[in-house]
Amino acid sequence: MERVVAVVAHPDDAELLAYGTLLRYRQLGADVTVLMATHGAGGVSLADAARGIRLAEDARTREVQAAWAGTGVEVAWLGLADGALRPDRSLISAVEGELVRLGSTTVITHSPHADNDHQDHLALATATANAAARVLSCRTVLYGEPHAPRSNFAPTVLVDITAFLDDKVKALAQHRTQGGRWYLEESYTRQRAAAAGWRLRPTDAAAGRVFEAFETPLLTLLNSQPEQERP
Amino acid sequence: MERVVAVVAHPDDAELLAYGTLLRYRQLGADVTVLMATHGAGGVSLADAARGIRLAEDARTREVQAAWAGTGVEVAWLGLADGALRPDRSLISAVEGELVRLGSTTVITHSPHADNDHQDHLALATATANAAARVLSCRTVLYGEPHAPRSNFAPTVLVDITAFLDDKVKALAQHRTQGGRWYLEESYTRQRAAAAGWRLRPTDAAAGRVFEAFETPLLTLLNSQPEQERP
Amino acid sequence: MERVVAVVAHPDDAELLAYGTLLRYRQLGADVTVLMATHGAGGVSLADAARGIRLAEDARTREVQAAWAGTGVEVAWLGLADGALRPDRSLISAVEGELVRLGSTTVITHSPHADNDHQDHLALATATANAAARVLSCRTVLYGEPHAPRSNFAPTVLVDITAFLDDKVKALAQHRTQGGRWYLEESYTRQRAAAAGWRLRPTDAAAGRVFEAFETPLLTLLNSQPEQERP
Amino acid sequence: MERVVAVVAHPDDAELLAYGTLLRYRQLGADVTVLMATHGAGGVSLADAARGIRLAEDARTREVQAAWAGTGVEVAWLGLADGALRPDRSLISAVEGELVRLGSTTVITHSPHADNDHQDHLALATATANAAARVLSCRTVLYGEPHAPRSNFAPTVLVDITAFLDDKVKALAQHRTQGGRWYLEESYTRQRAAAAGWRLRPTDAAAGRVFEAFETPLLTLLNSQPEQERP
Amino acid sequence: MERVVAVVAHPDDAELLAYGTLLRYRQLGADVTVLMATHGAGGVSLADAARGIRLAEDARTREVQAAWAGTGVEVAWLGLADGALRPDRSLISAVEGELVRLGSTTVITHSPHADNDHQDHLALATATANAAARVLSCRTVLYGEPHAPRSNFAPTVLVDITAFLDDKVKALAQHRTQGGRWYLEESYTRQRAAAAGWRLRPTDAAAGRVFEAFETPLLTLLNSQPEQERP
Amino acid sequence: MERVVAVVAHPDDAELLAYGTLLRYRQLGADVTVLMATHGAGGVSLADAARGIRLAEDARTREVQAAWAGTGVEVAWLGLADGALRPDRSLISAVEGELVRLGSTTVITHSPHADNDHQDHLALATATANAAARVLSCRTVLYGEPHAPRSNFAPTVLVDITAFLDDKVKALAQHRTQGGRWYLEESYTRQRAAAAGWRLRPTDAAAGRVFEAFETPLLTLLNSQPEQERP
Repeated sequence: MERVVAVVAHPDDAELLAYGTLLRYRQLGADVTVLMATHGAGGVSLADAARGIRLAEDARTREVQAAWAGTGVEVAWLGLADGALRPDRSLISAVEGELVRLGSTTVITHSPHADNDHQDHLALATATANAAARVLSCRTVLYGEPHAPRSNFAPTVLVDITAFLDDKVKALAQHRTQGGRWYLEESYTRQRAAAAGWRLRPTDAAAGRVFEAFETPLLTLLNSQPEQERP
Repeated sequence: MERVVAVVAHPDDAELLAYGTLLRYRQLGADVTVLMATHGAGGVSLADAARGIRLAEDARTREVQAAWAGTGVEVAWLGLADGALRPDRSLISAVEGELVRLGSTTVITHSPHADNDHQDHLALATATANAAARVLSCRTVLYGEPHAPRSNFAPTVLVDITAFLDDKVKALAQHRTQGGRWYLEESYTRQRAAAAGWRLRPTDAAAGRVFEAFETPLLTLLNSQPEQERP
Repeated sequence: MERVVAVVAHPDDAELLAYGTLLRYRQLGADVTVLMATHGAGGVSLADAARGIRLAEDARTREVQAAWAGTGVEVAWLGLADGALRPDRSLISAVEGELVRLGSTTVITHSPHADNDHQDHLALATATANAAARVLSCRTVLYGEPHAPRSNFAPTVLVDITAFLDDKVKALAQHRTQGGRWYLEESYTRQRAAAAGWRLRPTDAAAGRVFEAFETPLLTLLNSQPEQERP
Repeated sequence: MERVVAVVAHPDDAELLAYGTLLRYRQLGADVTVLMATHGAGGVSLADAARGIRLAEDARTREVQAAWAGTGVEVAWLGLADGALRPDRSLISAVEGELVRLGSTTVITHSPHADNDHQDHLALATATANAAARVLSCRTVLYGEPHAPRSNFAPTVLVDITAFLDDKVKALAQHRTQGGRWYLEESYTRQRAAAAGWRLRPTDAAAGRVFEAFETPLLTLLNSQPEQERP
Repeated sequence: MERVVAVVAHPDDAELLAYGTLLRYRQLGADVTVLMATHGAGGVSLADAARGIRLAEDARTREVQAAWAGTGVEVAWLGLADGALRPDRSLISAVEGELVRLGSTTVITHSPHADNDHQDHLALATATANAAARVLSCRTVLYGEPHAPRSNFAPTVLVDITAFLDDKVKALAQHRTQGGRWYLEESYTRQRAAAAGWRLRPTDAAAGRVFEAFETPLLTLLNSQPEQERP
Repeated sequence: MERVVAVVAHPDDAELLAYGTLLRYRQLGADVTVLMATHGAGGVSLADAARGIRLAEDARTREVQAAWAGTGVEVAWLGLADGALRPDRSLISAVEGELVRLGSTTVITHSPHADNDHQDHLALATATANAAARVLSCRTVLYGEPHAPRSNFAPTVLVDITAFLDDKVKALAQHRTQGGRWYLEESYTRQRAAAAGWRLRPTDAAAGRVFEAFETPLLTLLNSQPEQERP
């Protein structure tokens, strides 16, 4: 059975990268967990921070719970400090431990090559790619699309999320403390889902299908290895 | 003064790659020429070709004239056979001759690196890049965005075409013999113009600005070389 | 249902690139076709050619039939001249026609980026990638591993072929007219299947699992699009 | 109006990367600021450091003032510790704050991809690229040429600095505390300015024109967006 | 005379990357030094660490001495903390100092581009590449093959180690505290030495020759510069 | 013993790419052959061709003989048509035959990746790289620096040609029929030899050393394989 783990830096990242894909995995019967490295306490703008606005940790936690409510997706946290992730031995071991605990077969994370992305995203992606290579059960690793502009991203894997796009828009809207950020707005979400199709399967895009797109360093196709052979 | 030449394989290619950009150059006072390598007689689908449908050469020529009517953009042709372009000495010399004749300072063409693009586009792009390197007056070369899916394209240059997008849609609609192709439809044109912004300047995209995007192998900025110094 | 088409230049190429993968697809119930562009009449060494040795067309055809006998894999031919493939409109249309006729959902071919590979392989790969982008039913494209040395190849997709490796060795041995070529020998076949694992899933390789490896420009995961929706 | 900000790690870096370009911008009427992250206190050789030689902070500050005297270029400092820059949230925010304060439209910095460059250069370049993507007014970002050998650098943007080369040599000579370093010598400065031309516009190089070269992740051409539309 | 320095993060790394190459250099009369950044105290698995197992520093030191005994290769240490290397000024200076002290002409280290490799390997490789560029005597730099899976590695340099492979297997077996790791096992060592040949010189591989493979950012061929000219 | 073959498209190409390197190989006792694919009859400018100027075949042949006179370098020709080289089976076989006949151990040719280079250079480079991979004796392949601007070229191999630079200038001056081309002028030759050093070994460049630079897909270092073992 597939056990899928999305390893992301902040609340809202998993919805941005792979909301529809995770729900499609659920629909096919997989176990799905979203593992967040931080509670996103840094999710205030410079302007707000200057005005002394701070985020309650549980504010963002409640938003995450609302976003995934009723989907059967599990939520877990590493509890690290927002804005300070570094791809060192400690972070790699923390992620590796969780992947082993969950018996993950497929790992979804940020892209470690998206060179202009948030520093936390890059650090966690690098650590997760490294950790996944040490976990025997991991047969597939997917890197989701960054929203930082001018980032290097060359997707080759598509998942059709036409049936889940409206719910993705709603899930992103749950992150009320982040309101006003362009990458959480419906227009961006819809255009990105369409653009992935126009880039890789344009005739389907012309027919209205929408997608989430991924890079992959390892994807095992047609798995033929019996589970019971594995230690 | 800027003398801009768009070197493209077929009718409709220049509108797809750079309609708004060429009109913006005109607005700033530049001379602009669209040079088409072929008359596009091959622009029939396999299905139509099987039914014996052939295109009259002047049908597509009239469409080109309609598309650029009233813009002040000049139109010229190399008169080569559609579908059979090869980046050989003959093609390079033909393009080089035109670039010299027109005294081009900026050349816009297809991307020679868009590895899944139409074979004619790749051949002409390779020949034009080579020819431009031999022409003293050429100070800037831009490669426009391919519409073939799964093509390698990494733009870094943007031109704001918000003021020209409606006219671009109309110009593409002039190519009536090509009706039904997804890449000529309004929805594709509008999403591509938006996607270029979301990728490189998202806050402007969120504000409704739209763009044409280009790769460049050479772009001369802040030109400080007096024309009269040149032979 | 999956309909898989392997588009290759010569007899023996499909076995080299994807023998185990094609049998695994058959095992899962897919229709599988091997489409060869040429009959491989050029498969003589320079030394043999100098001595006047020529290959009978049907000699290699019989070897292909022996290699795939009993597997349920269909064999088809484009009948083009060995050694003279070029990625032009004619070749693209021929491949596109076959992909449409077979309703292919997955296409396997040579890598168009394997820059030191056989010129026929590169030409056919380029044409097939281009053709596949025009065929609505094609949702996945895989590029198999070249055997030419010093070729650019960066696989990310693995298929476990442990159960099929012995048969792959036997199938390659059917190509008796090509005897003596190092890339058809058992030692190379076994080391390549192991090396793919050591590179991407080393703990599985250490446990004796062997693989075929692929690059991909497009892989549709978790297909959720009902067939009946398609035109 | 153009507001250009050069964000560099140490005194002398802005002169190395873009002296002629910044003066050309001034000549065209732009506001130009050089923002230095550190005062360059680490600019002593290992040998000198071993002998206990330390640099007075104001020694290098005075050299910077001498280098830019009379040019109309403003000089600003972040005041960070030389040798210890890291591309973390703190550095990104510091740069972002300055870019917003200055209303920068064009940002020039080190190349974040010059993999063998000084660690401070890479850290600052990464932080600045990230910061610039968050600043609405930034429409163009340029990465200057590293002097560290064996660095990855693939410039596509040229600025003709023939009229400014002699002054560039003089400005670099103002950095007397750094005397003896090969990359500050006249011969290197002149050959580098020539080499940029030979690589990208050789007929101009043969005619004696010299250049500064840049990579770019975003360059807005033919700006058509009225300033007053911007918030 | 050649003075070769292998700069590696941990005990066993030099044997993995370049055992045969270093012995071949010795055979040709070169001075050879292995410089280890750490004593490898972190070389325990997560499971062992959880059980409280710690490594004695001198345990791994003795293994290194056994591995290189009788080869004439010198061993040196930087004495840094295992797992905590960072490519900062301190590390660069430490490596630079050693390269100068040893008068190294050829430097062998980890690959700084092997993006999924151990964080210590990447940090040391980056620092060493940077340091080597500052050391006048260094004319050649080689990056050895990582064993971390899914790492970017594109070797172009081969050294035939057929005569040394059996001894390489024995040297790796000296690292008894690391027993059970797949990359120290004989089967991996032999397949990797064969795979390097199959990839770059397959006819030699077919004849049984085995190799170590390297990337290079700088390789000086046919050295014609008299030593006495150098300062 | 080393047997070096430079495979180039036209007269003057071998001098441009590798004059100093070939003389250095001679100095060390190697057999050296320059193999030209064409006699360079196309070496007239468009302007001259328009005036009816044609080149006598033996004019360029005599220039080649003058350029290499007294060096001990052998000269050979494939006799193909200038401007019409294509990387097909015929060209690959012709080059392969010559490499076998000469028993070449090192092959020097144009760069197949220099994407804006002369079409003949790219075709011959592609064919030669392919041919060299089939020739057992070839242990090293070097790609010389293109002079076409805006070409992709990332050299890592240096040969010090300080002792040969004056003779290289004189050899290039022998190509009198090509007079006036910028890439044959002394200033370009000297700056290119210096630039290779500044890019890869700047402290040596500062000391006046000059180099030829190469890319390599395969370089065998410390050759330890007895000649007599080879078939």
